[in-house]
Amino acid sequence: MTRRKIIIDTDPGQDDAFALLLALGSPDELEVVGVTAVHGNVPLARTTINAQMVIELAGRADIPVYPGCPRPMVKPGFTAEYVHGPSGLDGCELPPPSAPLGDRHGVDFIIDTVMAAAPGEISVCTLGPMTNLAVAMIKEPAIIPRLAEVVFMGGGFFEGGNTTPAAEFNIYVDPHAAHVVLASGAPVTMVPIDLTYKAVMTPEWLRRLRAVGKRTAVEAAGMAEFYQDYGNKKFGTDSYPLHDPCVIGYLLRPDLFQGRKCHVEVEIHSPVTSGMTVVDWWNVTKKPANCLVLRDLDNPPFYELMLERIARLP
Amino acid sequence: MTRRKIIIDTDPGQDDAFALLLALGSPDELEVVGVTAVHGNVPLARTTINAQMVIELAGRADIPVYPGCPRPMVKPGFTAEYVHGPSGLDGCELPPPSAPLGDRHGVDFIIDTVMAAAPGEISVCTLGPMTNLAVAMIKEPAIIPRLAEVVFMGGGFFEGGNTTPAAEFNIYVDPHAAHVVLASGAPVTMVPIDLTYKAVMTPEWLRRLRAVGKRTAVEAAGMAEFYQDYGNKKFGTDSYPLHDPCVIGYLLRPDLFQGRKCHVEVEIHSPVTSGMTVVDWWNVTKKPANCLVLRDLDNPPFYELMLERIARLP
Amino acid sequence: MTRRKIIIDTDPGQDDAFALLLALGSPDELEVVGVTAVHGNVPLARTTINAQMVIELAGRADIPVYPGCPRPMVKPGFTAEYVHGPSGLDGCELPPPSAPLGDRHGVDFIIDTVMAAAPGEISVCTLGPMTNLAVAMIKEPAIIPRLAEVVFMGGGFFEGGNTTPAAEFNIYVDPHAAHVVLASGAPVTMVPIDLTYKAVMTPEWLRRLRAVGKRTAVEAAGMAEFYQDYGNKKFGTDSYPLHDPCVIGYLLRPDLFQGRKCHVEVEIHSPVTSGMTVVDWWNVTKKPANCLVLRDLDNPPFYELMLERIARLP
Amino acid sequence: MTRRKIIIDTDPGQDDAFALLLALGSPDELEVVGVTAVHGNVPLARTTINAQMVIELAGRADIPVYPGCPRPMVKPGFTAEYVHGPSGLDGCELPPPSAPLGDRHGVDFIIDTVMAAAPGEISVCTLGPMTNLAVAMIKEPAIIPRLAEVVFMGGGFFEGGNTTPAAEFNIYVDPHAAHVVLASGAPVTMVPIDLTYKAVMTPEWLRRLRAVGKRTAVEAAGMAEFYQDYGNKKFGTDSYPLHDPCVIGYLLRPDLFQGRKCHVEVEIHSPVTSGMTVVDWWNVTKKPANCLVLRDLDNPPFYELMLERIARLP
Ligand SMILES: [Ca+2]
Ligand SMILES: [Ca+2]
Ligand SMILES: [Ca+2]
Ligand SMILES: [Ca+2]
Repeated sequence: MTRRKIIIDTDPGQDDAFALLLALGSPDELEVVGVTAVHGNVPLARTTINAQMVIELAGRADIPVYPGCPRPMVKPGFTAEYVHGPSGLDGCELPPPSAPLGDRHGVDFIIDTVMAAAPGEISVCTLGPMTNLAVAMIKEPAIIPRLAEVVFMGGGFFEGGNTTPAAEFNIYVDPHAAHVVLASGAPVTMVPIDLTYKAVMTPEWLRRLRAVGKRTAVEAAGMAEFYQDYGNKKFGTDSYPLHDPCVIGYLLRPDLFQGRKCHVEVEIHSPVTSGMTVVDWWNVTKKPANCLVLRDLDNPPFYELMLERIARLP
Repeated sequence: MTRRKIIIDTDPGQDDAFALLLALGSPDELEVVGVTAVHGNVPLARTTINAQMVIELAGRADIPVYPGCPRPMVKPGFTAEYVHGPSGLDGCELPPPSAPLGDRHGVDFIIDTVMAAAPGEISVCTLGPMTNLAVAMIKEPAIIPRLAEVVFMGGGFFEGGNTTPAAEFNIYVDPHAAHVVLASGAPVTMVPIDLTYKAVMTPEWLRRLRAVGKRTAVEAAGMAEFYQDYGNKKFGTDSYPLHDPCVIGYLLRPDLFQGRKCHVEVEIHSPVTSGMTVVDWWNVTKKPANCLVLRDLDNPPFYELMLERIARLP
Repeated sequence: MTRRKIIIDTDPGQDDAFALLLALGSPDELEVVGVTAVHGNVPLARTTINAQMVIELAGRADIPVYPGCPRPMVKPGFTAEYVHGPSGLDGCELPPPSAPLGDRHGVDFIIDTVMAAAPGEISVCTLGPMTNLAVAMIKEPAIIPRLAEVVFMGGGFFEGGNTTPAAEFNIYVDPHAAHVVLASGAPVTMVPIDLTYKAVMTPEWLRRLRAVGKRTAVEAAGMAEFYQDYGNKKFGTDSYPLHDPCVIGYLLRPDLFQGRKCHVEVEIHSPVTSGMTVVDWWNVTKKPANCLVLRDLDNPPFYELMLERIARLP
Repeated sequence: MTRRKIIIDTDPGQDDAFALLLALGSPDELEVVGVTAVHGNVPLARTTINAQMVIELAGRADIPVYPGCPRPMVKPGFTAEYVHGPSGLDGCELPPPSAPLGDRHGVDFIIDTVMAAAPGEISVCTLGPMTNLAVAMIKEPAIIPRLAEVVFMGGGFFEGGNTTPAAEFNIYVDPHAAHVVLASGAPVTMVPIDLTYKAVMTPEWLRRLRAVGKRTAVEAAGMAEFYQDYGNKKFGTDSYPLHDPCVIGYLLRPDLFQGRKCHVEVEIHSPVTSGMTVVDWWNVTKKPANCLVLRDLDNPPFYELMLERIARLP
C-alpha cells in the first residue's frame, strides 16, 4: 500500500478524536496534510480548539488546523452538546493548544491543497457536516476531478436516522452540503450509521485501551467512557459505537469493510425527511451509482487495529 | 376470542388472495362482512373480478364484492403487472365470477357498514392502496371514531421500500390516502415490509400446500409459485414472502407478532421520498404514537396456521 | 343562448349568497339543478343551512341542498369566520330553512346527476374549496369527460393570495382538491382574485340595491354591508369586491370577461406556497393549457346585471 | 449625500453593463471599490471578461474585477444566452480587456473588503445570481452585521416570474443563495421585475443616447438595441426595460423609487415554484419585515439621470 495523502475535515467530538488518533498513529499508510475544522457537534470555535488539542495530544503539533465554515450552507445552525457535552470532548483533560492556527480558511486550504497536488493525489475525509468541502466545490469546482476520493461519515438508511427518524446528524445539519458532494461526480464512499452502529467498543476493549497506560491512550479512554454513556442510556446497552474512526479504518484496511456501489440522493426538499440519505440499494431507480455505501465491517480486527495504533502514540 | 367483523379492502394480487383465503378459512374468529376492491396491483376492473373469483373459489359467493375507487387521490395511477402478471392472479385458473357485484360503491359500503354497526364493531383491513378508506373518511369523518381498528399492509422503514428506494408499493401508489388514515386518529396497525419480508414461504411449505389436494389449496399453490418467481429473481433466493396474509394472521394470532407503538408520518411532499412511511421507532420527535408498527413475527406457526385454514376450504 | 344546467357547489359566505341570488334570478339562462354545500368559510353544518336559507329567500325551496364533504382532502380544516362572521351570513336576518335536505351526499349528487345527464349537459360551478367535485372525480372518474365545464372561484396569481402571501382562501383550504380538478382534463375556467378584486361594489350600487325595497334585495344589501366592512378595513378603501357572483356573471355574460387559456398548476408541495395557483400566463413552460384564466371584467354592466336579476326575486 | 462605497457583483449581460456605466458615471456619489463577477446570464469566464470590458470602456481600468463562483450553490448551472446572445454583451464591439484580473476570488474580495472597512461602510449590489455574497456569508458570517446594505436586482411577485411562471432569472438560477442573503438579517433592498418592468427605455431615449456621440454612449446604445429585441418579441412592444441599472438608480436617487418593508421568503422546496420570492405585501403572515421591496419608480427622471451620467463617460 502506498502512503495516501489525506485532509481530515472534522468537528470533534469524541469519536472524531478517535479518528484523528487512528490516522496519526498510522504514519506509514496515511499522511495527514492538514486538518480542517467545521461547525457540527459543537460550534466552530470549539471544534477548532478540540482538533488542535487532539493533534497536540498525539504529539503532532506540526499539523496545522484550519478553521472552516461556522454555519451550514442553507439551514440554521444546529449542534449536539446533548451527546458530546458542552466542550465536545467531555471526558478528557487536555491543555489548551499551543501551536498557531493554520494560515487560511479551511475552505481555501482544501482548494489550495487539491489544486497544488497532482490529480488524484489528495483524498478528503469528512467527519462532520460537509459544509467545508461543499463550499470548496462551489467556490472552485476544478477541485472535483482532482480529488482521489471523498470518504465521509454520515447518513443512514436501513437504520433510519439518529437525529430525526430519517436523518443522521452530519447530514441533517447541512443536507445541502451533502447533496453538493454526492452530486459532484467525485468518487465518494459513505460510512453510514448502518455500518457504524456495528462498530461497537466493548467494556473489555476500553479496559485494554486504558491499560496501555500512555497519556494518549488514557485520555482517549476517558473520552470514550463519557461518550458511550449517552448511547448506552438511549439504547439500553453497554457497548456503544465509535462512528468516525470507521472512515480511517476503511482507508487503512478496506478488506475489513463491505458495501455496494449505489445511487444515493440526499433529501433536501421535505421537512419530514430533510437530511435523509436515500440509498438505492436494489437499483430500482436505474440511476447510475454515485457512491460506495459501506454496510458491514469485521469489527474485532478493526478495534484491534485502533488499539494498536493509538498505543503507538505518546 | 370473540368473532370480529371485518371489511377487507383489497387489490388481488396473489398475496391478497392468500389473505382472503386465510380469512375465509377462519370463520370462527372472523366474519368478513364485505370485500371492497381498489385499484392497485392491477386496475380496478381486474381487482374486482379477482376478488370475486377468490371468494367463489373459497365457496363464499354469498360475500359481496364492492368496487371502489379506480384511481389514487392525487397522484396519477400506477399498477404492478411486472410483479403479478397481466391478470393480477397469474398462476391459477379460475372461472369467471358468477355472483352479482355489491349494490353500491366500495366507499359507501365502508361508510354505511361502519355507521350502521355499533361503535367499535367493525375493523377495516386494507391490502392495497388505501384510497377507499381515506375517501370514506373524507366523505364521512363520523366513521373515524366508530372504527374498531385499521390494519394495513403497507409501508416500510428499516427495509426501505420496494417500489422506490424509500417507498413500498401500496403507500407509493396513494401516499395521500395513507396520510389521511394515519392522521385520522383511528387505531391503526401497520404491517410493513420490515415484517412481511420475514414471512417467507419455503419450497417445502408450498409442496405441502399443493399436497392438500383440494381445489382451493391447489390453485393457491399455483398462484404462490408464480408470485415467488418475481421475488426470487429480484433477491436471488428461493423463499419469497407473502405480504398480505400477515394482516389476517395478526388478527387471528396477535401473539405471533411483535411491534411498537410509534409516530408514523407519510411523506407526501418530496419527489425523492414520496410514499415513505417515516417511523419514529426511537421516539426522537416526541410526537405521540399514532400507529402500532409490527416488525417481527414467529414465522413457522404463522405458515402452519395458513396451511391449516386454507386446507379447510373446498 | 340556450339554458344551461348547472350545479352550484358553495360555502356561503355572503358573496356565495350573491352568486346564488344572481343564478336564481336568471332562470331563462340557468337551470340550477341542485346545490351542494361544502366546508369552507364556515363549517359544513352552517354552509348547508346558509345555502338553504338563501334559496328559500329567493323563493326556490324546490331546489334541494345536498351537504357534501365536511373537511379538506388532505390538510386539516380551516375556516374564515374572521371574514364572514360566526354565521357565515352575518348582516342578514333569515328564518331557519323549512325544506328538507337533499336525499344524498353532495358528492353523490354530483356523480349521479352528471352520469344521468347527456355528455356535456351539466356544468359545475364551485364557489368554495373544491373538495366535493374532486372527491366525485376520484370516486367516479367517468364523470370527467361528461362535464360541460367547471367554473371555479378561486386562486390568484398577479394579485398573490388573500390568505397567505401566495394563496387564495378556496385553494389554500384544499389545494389537493384544486389540483385534482385542474389536472383532470375537464374544461376548466378559473375566476381568480386577479379578476374579482376588480369586481367592486360601490356605495352607490349598495344604496340602489337596498332601494329596490323587496325582501331579497334588502337582505342582500345587509349582507354586502357586513361583508365589505372586513375588506375596507384591510385595504383602506370604500368599495370592496364580491368574489363569487363573478362565476355566475361569466356564465350569463361571457362577453363581459377577458382571459387567456394557460397552463395552471396548483402548488401542493411547499409549506411556503401551498395552495398557490401557478399561472403560466406567458407560456414559458410550454405545457398545454388546461384552464381559461379570467383576468379582467367590464364591471359596471356586471353590477347592473346583478342588480336587475336580484330585483326580480321576491 | 455622502459618497457611498459599493461592491458591484454582476453577470454582464447588457443591462448589467448599463448598471456599471451608471455607477461609473456617478463618481461624486458612488465609489466602486471593486467588481465581482458571477455565473449567470453567461458562464463566469465570459461575465468576468464582460465586466472588464465595460469598465475599460468607461475608462476605469483601475477598478479590478474579481472572478467569483462559476456555479450555483445547490442547483445545476443555468445560463441565458437566449436573452443576451452568446457573448452576453451582443450588440457592442469592445476590445479584449487589457488590465489584469483582481488578485483573489470574488468571494474573498467581498469578505476582505467588508472586514477591513468600518462597520456600515460597504454596500453590496448584486445584479445576477447571489452566489458570491451568499458563499461569503457562509464562509465568514461576521460580514453580515458589517454590511451597510444589500441591494439586489431579482425576484418578482405581482408580475410572476420571467424564467418560470413564478421565478425571476437571478433567483431561479440560485434560490438557495437568495435565501441565505434574505434570511441573513442584513438590511436588504429588493429590486424585482415588478419594478423593473416599469423601467422601460423608449426608442426616443435610445436615439438620444446614440446621439451623445461619445464611444461609451454609442456602444451602450448598441447593446440596448440588441437586448430589447428579445423583450419586444416576447411581449409584443417597442419599449423594453433595463433591469439592473435600477439598483444603481435607487442608490443615486432613492426619492424616485417607492416600496414597502415586507417579509420576503424564497421558495427553495418545490419544483413548481422554486426560486419564487414570496412577498408578504399585506403582512398576512405577521412575520417581521426583512426586506424593502421596491415596486414603483418615476421612470422619466431615472432615464434622464442615466443618460446624463453615461454621457459623462469617454
Ligand atoms: Ca464528527
Ligand atoms: Ca395487495
Ligand atoms: Ca365562497
Ligand atoms: Ca444581471
